[in-house]
Amino acid sequence: MSKAIVLLSGGLDSCVALHVALNDGHEVCALSFDYGQRHKKELECARAIAAHAGVKDHCVVSLNLAQWGGSSLTDMNMKVEDGNLDSKEIPATYVPARNMVFLSIAASMAEARGAEHIYIGVSQVDYSGYVDCRKEFIDAMETAINLGTVMGAEKGRKITIHAPFENMTKADEIRLGLKLGVDFGLTWTCYRGGEKPCGKCDSCLLRAKAFAEVGIPDPALTR
Amino acid sequence: MSKAIVLLSGGLDSCVALHVALNDGHEVCALSFDYGQRHKKELECARAIAAHAGVKDHCVVSLNLAQWGGSSLTDMNMKVEDGNLDSKEIPATYVPARNMVFLSIAASMAEARGAEHIYIGVSQVDYSGYVDCRKEFIDAMETAINLGTVMGAEKGRKITIHAPFENMTKADEIRLGLKLGVDFGLTWTCYRGGEKPCGKCDSCLLRAKAFAEVGIPDPALTR
Repeated sequence: MSKAIVLLSGGLDSCVALHVALNDGHEVCALSFDYGQRHKKELECARAIAAHAGVKDHCVVSLNLAQWGGSSLTDMNMKVEDGNLDSKEIPATYVPARNMVFLSIAASMAEARGAEHIYIGVSQVDYSGYVDCRKEFIDAMETAINLGTVMGAEKGRKITIHAPFENMTKADEIRLGLKLGVDFGLTWTCYRGGEKPCGKCDSCLLRAKAFAEVGIPDPALTR
Repeated sequence: MSKAIVLLSGGLDSCVALHVALNDGHEVCALSFDYGQRHKKELECARAIAAHAGVKDHCVVSLNLAQWGGSSLTDMNMKVEDGNLDSKEIPATYVPARNMVFLSIAASMAEARGAEHIYIGVSQVDYSGYVDCRKEFIDAMETAINLGTVMGAEKGRKITIHAPFENMTKADEIRLGLKLGVDFGLTWTCYRGGEKPCGKCDSCLLRAKAFAEVGIPDPALTR
């Protein structure tokens, strides 16, 4: 069975990505990061999602990106602002080069595990404008990964990055997740990490808009 | 003054790279990694090199790449084999995707610090065949960094990766270092991390060959 590394934050997107990878027939190795983010709720969700899906190989990598801050998610002196989906500005929640760091570490794990597939739940449709969610960046990373690993550059075992929602609305992604048996109640999206999702940050707004488009209540709000 | 991130392992190459960056007129932020490597000698050397050069901004990032091994440098159940400079095989000391991970984290720090330059001491001339030391990989990473950071992709502040020894022999690199006032006695190259360099691993052999070509004794061996 072919192996796939799935970047699993514990959010909605990465949870659906994990189920897509399983549905594609891969043996999944999940990879999560304790990178100095504001709260640990999403990591607890990542563990619950992996367990619920029967994924036994789940690595959590500690990496302190908070030591140079540059984001309201990692610098506790900054506040997470309320979201504004009409804004063209990249919000202060952007963490410098986060997806590049995550994909690079996924490439290291992929090579060690002999996995030819990496899944990441980014989208350039319903997103916050983060540059590291766009297709051209994902393509550039795939090129770099295949030049910078022995698997890709010497052994002819190309590593493919799958970003199945890259050009999908979040509503369509939820519809796909429902078909695949995703339990959205296990996922955590809110940037703020309170008892309940705040409903006001950019991430909560994008999620609420998508569930409204699908026309179902968000199971995470009723638990 | 422009800022530069320098990847500083504590080895010969990264030490010369740091002095090149200073000589190029940059304010240097040094970046080292405690990534689960076999020994901590090179990290002690990195601290000494930064202090000796008057670099005050020195981050050491902890990141456990040893959790998936795949290299004799991070898997303590493997032995570091003696080197063979005539071999065409990539040695087992290759750490999966290491330079990609290091450059990605350097990009995160660069963006947080507003640094437009990253220095890395790789070479594709006197090297162990590691694919992540080659120019085509470094170029691909520069492309990815400029698509995956707000600085590069949105603000028109391109980040440049400098690999000043990419096409230089190690002997020429040492000659350059001598001109720039590098104290090679502060650097650590040996993979094994004993009291003294072993003189037999691939890394020791490459270093000894280079000092022999320059025609001077290696100061690290006489201390």
